[in-house]
Amino acid sequence: MNTMNELEAQAAEGEQSIRRGEHGHLVIVGGHEDRENSKEILSRFFELSGGSAARIAIITAASKVPDEMWRRYDEVFTAMGAAELIRVDLPDRATANDPALAERVRGASGIFMTGGDQKRLLAMIGGTLMDEAMHSALKQHGACIGGTSAGASAMCGHMLADGKADLLPEKGSVSLGAGLGFVQRVVIDQHFSERHRLARLLTIVAQNPYLLGIGIDEDTALVVERGAGIEVIGAGSVTVVDGRNMVSDVADIPAGGTPQLIDVRLHLLPSGSSFALPEEIGQPNQLRKNSDRNTPAALLEFVRNVTKRTPLS
Amino acid sequence: MNTMNELEAQAAEGEQSIRRGEHGHLVIVGGHEDRENSKEILSRFFELSGGSAARIAIITAASKVPDEMWRRYDEVFTAMGAAELIRVDLPDRATANDPALAERVRGASGIFMTGGDQKRLLAMIGGTLMDEAMHSALKQHGACIGGTSAGASAMCGHMLADGKADLLPEKGSVSLGAGLGFVQRVVIDQHFSERHRLARLLTIVAQNPYLLGIGIDEDTALVVERGAGIEVIGAGSVTVVDGRNMVSDVADIPAGGTPQLIDVRLHLLPSGSSFALPEEIGQPNQLRKNSDRNTPAALLEFVRNVTKRTPLS
Repeated sequence: MNTMNELEAQAAEGEQSIRRGEHGHLVIVGGHEDRENSKEILSRFFELSGGSAARIAIITAASKVPDEMWRRYDEVFTAMGAAELIRVDLPDRATANDPALAERVRGASGIFMTGGDQKRLLAMIGGTLMDEAMHSALKQHGACIGGTSAGASAMCGHMLADGKADLLPEKGSVSLGAGLGFVQRVVIDQHFSERHRLARLLTIVAQNPYLLGIGIDEDTALVVERGAGIEVIGAGSVTVVDGRNMVSDVADIPAGGTPQLIDVRLHLLPSGSSFALPEEIGQPNQLRKNSDRNTPAALLEFVRNVTKRTPLS
Repeated sequence: MNTMNELEAQAAEGEQSIRRGEHGHLVIVGGHEDRENSKEILSRFFELSGGSAARIAIITAASKVPDEMWRRYDEVFTAMGAAELIRVDLPDRATANDPALAERVRGASGIFMTGGDQKRLLAMIGGTLMDEAMHSALKQHGACIGGTSAGASAMCGHMLADGKADLLPEKGSVSLGAGLGFVQRVVIDQHFSERHRLARLLTIVAQNPYLLGIGIDEDTALVVERGAGIEVIGAGSVTVVDGRNMVSDVADIPAGGTPQLIDVRLHLLPSGSSFALPEEIGQPNQLRKNSDRNTPAALLEFVRNVTKRTPLS
């Protein structure tokens, strides 16, 4: 119990040092974020996790080389001056259900999921105490949840699990799985422009118009301030694909066919783009741009979905 | 004058043998059309040019290897049984202004432009008697105008001249030139999916929302029945990018920057797609599909633009 109180005290301390952490942030990274030079994205994650007061958990469960992943991020955040780095190696579900480790993560002010394979990550963590602890850290303590590549895709409730990125959309070529659910009603793909994944994202949206498609480029992050707004930082862009008003024959064609898609809405949000929820415009927040003008109506559903404060399940 | 009368008589004869040729067709090919097996696209061009009565002019001016281009298409259409093949080699503008050669092309029932470089093609042919003869063949005699790759891009009034196809749209990276103007208010790119040219097409549309962007895949053709409707044939798809309702900061960013683009409409039209103008639905025509239902409103501008019967200039 002493340990618990100590951790809770640490969590309270961490929370106060986070500048805008009351509802928590997400830093969703398209892979290959710079770790050598500007470190723009990792610096933002560090800052949103509390800066020098940050206690950062590194979850390497997506990767087959967890030692290397741990060293990579331990080195960066230690050099930035984080108060504590917590190694979360999850070789099996039993470890992800270890109460002591879960409590340490619940008290973290920042949780970062490395790249690898999102299916592997979810196989280890989905539905475990660790899963619950991550949500609790975000929703109760305003922690910052970061993820790159596989760790980005895993943030969605409906997670892109598998799928080839061919030249054209192809019915049945992409599969979804149950993700961590930090964001709902969206699906996230990464390495987006670099690996030419628009056709893959269109395939998902064609078959699941309930989901908005989000493609994040390498060394690029979608920063989400829950309940407030979004910002794109880094080197590339975020592409949003909205099929809600689409007219399509996808239900009628055979698997393997190319669907006819009429009226898909596409948004390209380069680094520097930011949009606040209308109710947040004029409020003090970290959104650098556009907060003095209306967020375009076409983007509202996207901004609402990713910033939504979902309840603790 | 005897030669002229003879040619006009031939033209009249050719016109009668074209099934739906009163307003002329365009066969706009994304490059690498099959010439060995199904020959679906070239067969359609042959048929729309009058079949066994076809007199087909092959314009090789885009290419630096015109002999090879001529042999390639002469072989295919001769094997199909065309009545006459007319070689139109245009090494200079003087040749493109040769009245006798222009008259032969005016009397053709089909005119096919090979690949190469559309800037080279326009440098030789733009504003010449040959240019005028091609328009006359289409508009007065209902000839079929075909073009593949460079020959496809050249069909537009505003022709995609140069531009890199990078990962993201880039202001100032694409240039337009004056094309042949068989279609207006659109810009056509080819080898579209295969060469990942969406960013290039988005660049053009971002800077020129007046133009609808059309990307045609390899071994794929957009078949236009002027005044009636369109059809996609071949192996791939046609992508349409509509920026008319776009919100963009392209005017405010420096050259080389990535524009923010909100609400670009994207349509994916796979092979087999066809759309008639509303006033043509129910009329007998070659459109294989959809002619019994309404063309989606989102596509109407595109269908109107490419099927528009422009006057002889």
